[in-house]
Amino acid sequence: MKKVAVLTSGGDAPGMNPAIRAVVRRGIFQGLDVFGVQHGFEGLMKGNFISMDLGSVGDIIHRGGTILRSARSERFRTEEGQIEALQKLNEAEIDGLIVIGGDGSFRGAEKLTEKGFPTIGIPGTIDNDICGTDYTIGFDTAVNTVVEAIDKIRDTASSHERTYVIEVMGRDAGDIALWSGLCVGAESIIIPEEVCDMDDIVARLEQGNKRGKKHSIIVVAEGVCRGDEIAKAIEQTTGLETRVTVLGHLQRGGSPSAFDRMIASQMGAKAIDLLLDGHKGVMVGLKGGNLIHSPFAEAAKVQHKLDMSLYHLARSLSI
Amino acid sequence: MKKVAVLTSGGDAPGMNPAIRAVVRRGIFQGLDVFGVQHGFEGLMKGNFISMDLGSVGDIIHRGGTILRSARSERFRTEEGQIEALQKLNEAEIDGLIVIGGDGSFRGAEKLTEKGFPTIGIPGTIDNDICGTDYTIGFDTAVNTVVEAIDKIRDTASSHERTYVIEVMGRDAGDIALWSGLCVGAESIIIPEEVCDMDDIVARLEQGNKRGKKHSIIVVAEGVCRGDEIAKAIEQTTGLETRVTVLGHLQRGGSPSAFDRMIASQMGAKAIDLLLDGHKGVMVGLKGGNLIHSPFAEAAKVQHKLDMSLYHLARSLSI
Amino acid sequence: MKKVAVLTSGGDAPGMNPAIRAVVRRGIFQGLDVFGVQHGFEGLMKGNFISMDLGSVGDIIHRGGTILRSARSERFRTEEGQIEALQKLNEAEIDGLIVIGGDGSFRGAEKLTEKGFPTIGIPGTIDNDICGTDYTIGFDTAVNTVVEAIDKIRDTASSHERTYVIEVMGRDAGDIALWSGLCVGAESIIIPEEVCDMDDIVARLEQGNKRGKKHSIIVVAEGVCRGDEIAKAIEQTTGLETRVTVLGHLQRGGSPSAFDRMIASQMGAKAIDLLLDGHKGVMVGLKGGNLIHSPFAEAAKVQHKLDMSLYHLARSLSI
Amino acid sequence: MKKVAVLTSGGDAPGMNPAIRAVVRRGIFQGLDVFGVQHGFEGLMKGNFISMDLGSVGDIIHRGGTILRSARSERFRTEEGQIEALQKLNEAEIDGLIVIGGDGSFRGAEKLTEKGFPTIGIPGTIDNDICGTDYTIGFDTAVNTVVEAIDKIRDTASSHERTYVIEVMGRDAGDIALWSGLCVGAESIIIPEEVCDMDDIVARLEQGNKRGKKHSIIVVAEGVCRGDEIAKAIEQTTGLETRVTVLGHLQRGGSPSAFDRMIASQMGAKAIDLLLDGHKGVMVGLKGGNLIHSPFAEAAKVQHKLDMSLYHLARSLSI
Repeated sequence: MKKVAVLTSGGDAPGMNPAIRAVVRRGIFQGLDVFGVQHGFEGLMKGNFISMDLGSVGDIIHRGGTILRSARSERFRTEEGQIEALQKLNEAEIDGLIVIGGDGSFRGAEKLTEKGFPTIGIPGTIDNDICGTDYTIGFDTAVNTVVEAIDKIRDTASSHERTYVIEVMGRDAGDIALWSGLCVGAESIIIPEEVCDMDDIVARLEQGNKRGKKHSIIVVAEGVCRGDEIAKAIEQTTGLETRVTVLGHLQRGGSPSAFDRMIASQMGAKAIDLLLDGHKGVMVGLKGGNLIHSPFAEAAKVQHKLDMSLYHLARSLSI
Repeated sequence: MKKVAVLTSGGDAPGMNPAIRAVVRRGIFQGLDVFGVQHGFEGLMKGNFISMDLGSVGDIIHRGGTILRSARSERFRTEEGQIEALQKLNEAEIDGLIVIGGDGSFRGAEKLTEKGFPTIGIPGTIDNDICGTDYTIGFDTAVNTVVEAIDKIRDTASSHERTYVIEVMGRDAGDIALWSGLCVGAESIIIPEEVCDMDDIVARLEQGNKRGKKHSIIVVAEGVCRGDEIAKAIEQTTGLETRVTVLGHLQRGGSPSAFDRMIASQMGAKAIDLLLDGHKGVMVGLKGGNLIHSPFAEAAKVQHKLDMSLYHLARSLSI
Repeated sequence: MKKVAVLTSGGDAPGMNPAIRAVVRRGIFQGLDVFGVQHGFEGLMKGNFISMDLGSVGDIIHRGGTILRSARSERFRTEEGQIEALQKLNEAEIDGLIVIGGDGSFRGAEKLTEKGFPTIGIPGTIDNDICGTDYTIGFDTAVNTVVEAIDKIRDTASSHERTYVIEVMGRDAGDIALWSGLCVGAESIIIPEEVCDMDDIVARLEQGNKRGKKHSIIVVAEGVCRGDEIAKAIEQTTGLETRVTVLGHLQRGGSPSAFDRMIASQMGAKAIDLLLDGHKGVMVGLKGGNLIHSPFAEAAKVQHKLDMSLYHLARSLSI
Repeated sequence: MKKVAVLTSGGDAPGMNPAIRAVVRRGIFQGLDVFGVQHGFEGLMKGNFISMDLGSVGDIIHRGGTILRSARSERFRTEEGQIEALQKLNEAEIDGLIVIGGDGSFRGAEKLTEKGFPTIGIPGTIDNDICGTDYTIGFDTAVNTVVEAIDKIRDTASSHERTYVIEVMGRDAGDIALWSGLCVGAESIIIPEEVCDMDDIVARLEQGNKRGKKHSIIVVAEGVCRGDEIAKAIEQTTGLETRVTVLGHLQRGGSPSAFDRMIASQMGAKAIDLLLDGHKGVMVGLKGGNLIHSPFAEAAKVQHKLDMSLYHLARSLSI
């Protein structure tokens, strides 16, 4: 193993930059030549390899987004696209590829490994919806961003004694909604993992109202139901003035939190070490505080599970 | 003048709390008894006066929202409501009223003064749409909140090389859109004071694209046109991937900025001093760095004017 | 078990408020009466119990510090003081006590349990220096505060091409220094757990300088050595312009991070559940992502260990 | 006028980057070639001119520090150094120079203009200590940074019921201390413009203490007196537990605030327009909300004056 490459793929996440930095620096520390690929698999198929030296990742540890850019690639899903990527990797004499991204990106990496090329995955997505790790890079920052935004909305909710419905990211996984809901003391949290029970939501609001609560926050994961429909239903049933805010793409950005920089650094270095130890077709993960690795195939088989004890904790604390 | 009261009215704004603090502390400093009224004019008509001592406004200078709550009141617009408020003020032997709010709140205050009761207005609204002052309390914080949010969105815009349309507050005044657009280097800024010219927007995007810009930001004031329609038009014309974020009510909250705490403190103290000097029916303002006051009636006659030189500055800097 | 009390003790930490909230709300949820004690053990000896209802912990989840105040108590270290506290607890018919604080606070709690009174500890300190848990409440916020401060200093370091020495908290434990140092990409990190080798520090600076680094950051845990002495030594040996900043008490404050709110909520609720299950003389902890509990005595015997693999990771990434 | 150059000099300030951006973009907008000089006058004497295109200042509007680096230059104070700089400017066929910095930097610029070379100054320093403008670029950000830091310290001050002495920047000008002190509700503010009266400080603390204040904040401008000496004096006289924090260089960094981005953009563009209008030896300023310009010589003659009415306002509000 002499030359390795790294790319970021799928939706960007805060912490991808410290992960790239760790891959590059650890690679050079271990005596490797490291190359960056811009625009994910799309750039890989074009063979856009950039040589990365120590300075190329200087002053990026605190920046959001990804200096290697990201993209989704339809063409890489085809056999043809994958073979093209392999040719470019071989032409550039690259011996291993590290892919920072989510589930979809790992399926792409796995295709290359099935064809004999060593790949390692690093879980980078704000959604935290990847098996094989307790935390994905970007999740902690995203939750803090949501919590800070809702803390601001709380000011106006409190001044006007209103109910606010906040729509947050997480189409298939309720992690962001559940964590941020618990962290702001939301009266109700609506997640894909649990049936949305309007009667229960209304009952909790009315109970809180009765004991003197001046404002209420309801957090809903996008995709479960629309915030404005929830708000309408609440107003009609309870008569409480209710507003909606859809937080949108600001959840993807921002300087990575300490935790995300930490796990990005750990996982990035680990990915290099795994390649050097001859591993391939595995993703790095953090389980119970320990760095582990597990085959892509295995991770894909198991479905990501939300810790439902947190859901019940949230309910018992927002009475 | 022995007893004065203070209330907050209309949409809440960051900095209302330091303004309340200044009114209370300066009042006591000048030997007055100060009372707070909760829920704006609605509370006034109910005679809900709370005695405020020095400690009652301790530890609030940094908090968003308003500890006196705010509300909009339909009933206070009627003669009947106003007379009821006057009765309560007289029963409580209150000699002057300070109203922190926007244009609508000042119209309410003016009604009381027309009936002989001394009132002073303090401009508190994030929209900056009040004549008689260069800056309203809350505007600086709101602009900073918008700028920080767009700085985050820029990370993901840059990673994915996308165009983002950001919808910000300001139904009738483009101040927030113009300031924040200039401060984030937006490619185009759409405000009620200027015709929205889609051809120009598209031309600027394509020109930027041609010279290598990797992402673009378009800021639009709500009420001019919907962000999603702009985004759709851009995608159809240019083929550039375009996303929308509606920032919503987080723009109203947050700890007040230094500037807002400063002008809130100045204006709050000034309002007390004006009452003591026998003024009534005037609002405090900040013009050219100086504290001034002008009659409600006068302020209402003139229309708030956006500084259009900033609009042209923004255009020349985002080429 | 019908009545329980909660207090905060020792140095305050962000997240103590969400922990208090969780204790109070979970207690009421489980049918208990919950009391707060102000000023830690000092207040306990005076029997200052305040009845806490659901609303008493409303709107505090996002506030730094502790609404119950904290204090260090010399008198509670004496047998006499402890007996006085027990009398007050018995007079108030309180059946269990939850203590949020650090090692010293737990030794106090243990004394009460040795005398037969059920106590549960919750680890709350920014230093992360408590055995029996991977994370203490407040550590994540403190690290983020330090990281944000150093990110700002980096701007000026970079503009002037200087070296900065940053002194952070952690007299006996290098956790804050190591985490924040790794998260800002510090060239060297000086912690109590490792010999401070000036030759190595200088060699790393000169090596970085040679390859074109424009600025350098050195993080030092207070108590190991003084920042200004390090800076002087660096200037004398390398000739590099070097400045010092001692971050000081701002590290203790600030709105708790999402992670701290989360573990504070989990641990607070767990403490109540442990009391109800008949446990006493134990502290709650988070190990490998799981909530556990361990006897005070046991936790005190083992010395807190820093994860030295992070130290070596930091070195390999800041070459 | 065909070619102009821009440099940053002296202590760096947040907002220098948006000022550079405005100079470059407005210059190109007006048909000029714009060059950047690195490391201030030091780089000027070496003739290090870098051609700046539109993209060279892309994505910097939100970054702290200065991409052109800054430096203090002893050699440029000599006639020899100035002549060398002029030679390099002439060799590069540059027709005008824009200097972003403080008083000392303007004296340097003036020397060039005295020798016939057109220069324009833009006031960039966090200290706000420049005549000829109400606000310098960087001041608003620095005050907000200080205010946020003290808001954090307030949490721990309140939890432990302590007095805190905070030392902030401003060796010769009390602007940062006065503004931030007023904005955090400090009990006393110690500035170079006013005699430090320990009896008064102690009297105010004791008065506050008597009426139930739980914590106190004293803000002191560095250079007036040392924070630790004040703290010692307070502890000895009042017996109140008192701590010190010296905020240090984090006050120089951070993403520029909206206000600083705004005035930096305005002043940067104005500087170009002034050069094109044939002005030289003048600095741009903002007075009463209007962009003005005044000769360096004139600005240097008048001493910067702090608005002492703010000092008395602060005193009346922190009773």
